[in-house]
Amino acid sequence: MTTTARSLTELYAEVQQFHAAQMQALDSGDFDAYSATFTEDGEFAHTPGRPAARTRSGIAQELHAYHQERFAQDPVQRRHSFSMLRLSPRTDGAIDATFYCLVITSRPGVRQPEIAPSCAVHDVLVREKGQLLTRSRRVAHDYLSLL
Amino acid sequence: MTTTARSLTELYAEVQQFHAAQMQALDSGDFDAYSATFTEDGEFAHTPGRPAARTRSGIAQELHAYHQERFAQDPVQRRHSFSMLRLSPRTDGAIDATFYCLVITSRPGVRQPEIAPSCAVHDVLVREKGQLLTRSRRVAHDYLSLL
Amino acid sequence: MTTTARSLTELYAEVQQFHAAQMQALDSGDFDAYSATFTEDGEFAHTPGRPAARTRSGIAQELHAYHQERFAQDPVQRRHSFSMLRLSPRTDGAIDATFYCLVITSRPGVRQPEIAPSCAVHDVLVREKGQLLTRSRRVAHDYLSLL
Repeated sequence: MTTTARSLTELYAEVQQFHAAQMQALDSGDFDAYSATFTEDGEFAHTPGRPAARTRSGIAQELHAYHQERFAQDPVQRRHSFSMLRLSPRTDGAIDATFYCLVITSRPGVRQPEIAPSCAVHDVLVREKGQLLTRSRRVAHDYLSLL
Repeated sequence: MTTTARSLTELYAEVQQFHAAQMQALDSGDFDAYSATFTEDGEFAHTPGRPAARTRSGIAQELHAYHQERFAQDPVQRRHSFSMLRLSPRTDGAIDATFYCLVITSRPGVRQPEIAPSCAVHDVLVREKGQLLTRSRRVAHDYLSLL
Repeated sequence: MTTTARSLTELYAEVQQFHAAQMQALDSGDFDAYSATFTEDGEFAHTPGRPAARTRSGIAQELHAYHQERFAQDPVQRRHSFSMLRLSPRTDGAIDATFYCLVITSRPGVRQPEIAPSCAVHDVLVREKGQLLTRSRRVAHDYLSLL
């Protein structure tokens, strides 16, 4: 077992756990916990046509505004489901993580959720004081990338 | 590599493999193999409004009854697809596992499956004689949790 | 930590990374990169009723033909999303990998993707010069398996 194999194995499990905790926070509406998974100067580009949110407080603010605007009159349970995670560590210690994401939206009393859009996501992750953090997240929506 | 990092890495892969084998058993209709992945006194609350099934034989019985009732006249291939697995080991050795689940139901000759409902699942896992087992599984259906 | 536990942990992360890179290649239309993840004599049975494609160049050729035929007049972004991966190493070093797959197809300007079909996949993986390769991949479509 080489050091590299060992560290990629650990990194894979660690990023999966990091993403799971991060998205469970987002999907439960805990936007402060979600934004705390970004670096202080983190960047989050989640919707085409909207400027990227920047800094932890900017990301939390953007999420509060977005949810107020879209879901205040339309209570939903959203779930972000990631798959096909690929990790590419850089020599400077940052990690490129690319993966797919489906957004699943359930409405009260409606058994069948809306599943849209399908996205490709590119995270740049860094480690601060031993903890993984997202330095940037760029979400590309497949139905718009084709236009 | 700390012991904790090593064991969380191993635990992550082990739980993923455990869940995959467990759900491939369920989705192939092998309810006895599925119920054998629970502790002898295990508990499985899978559908709101139905009491939780208890004990291995109780869980197998409940699954046979449920499938007879719902699918005897409607042959389907169901698949349970988990994502965003988060593990929190307790000090007593039990492990809380929370994750998302989509239920995918295909019918003969119909290319597009029904994908419903979207669920959040909470497992309590324990280890007996070296093997992971589910002590309890609680499934919350998103479209009902919002009511 | 036994050697077996260690190697299954590493294998799990390695296969996940292998699958992620393989499918990101396929979904970006890089059929040569995709076919290079098979052994030279690899076999890929992806659609019932079509004969399995064989050899790297045969697989690349088949994919070019298939995409030309199906998508030349219908530009789409497809994503193959795997879940519930189960690994069973054989004594000869090959690895059986079974998992679920959803095919997600987005069209320009249409937010909701088509999600079909639901599949069960069986890979036989081998290691050559330290690298995992797919020796065979058989895809079963759930809506056809029931007929």
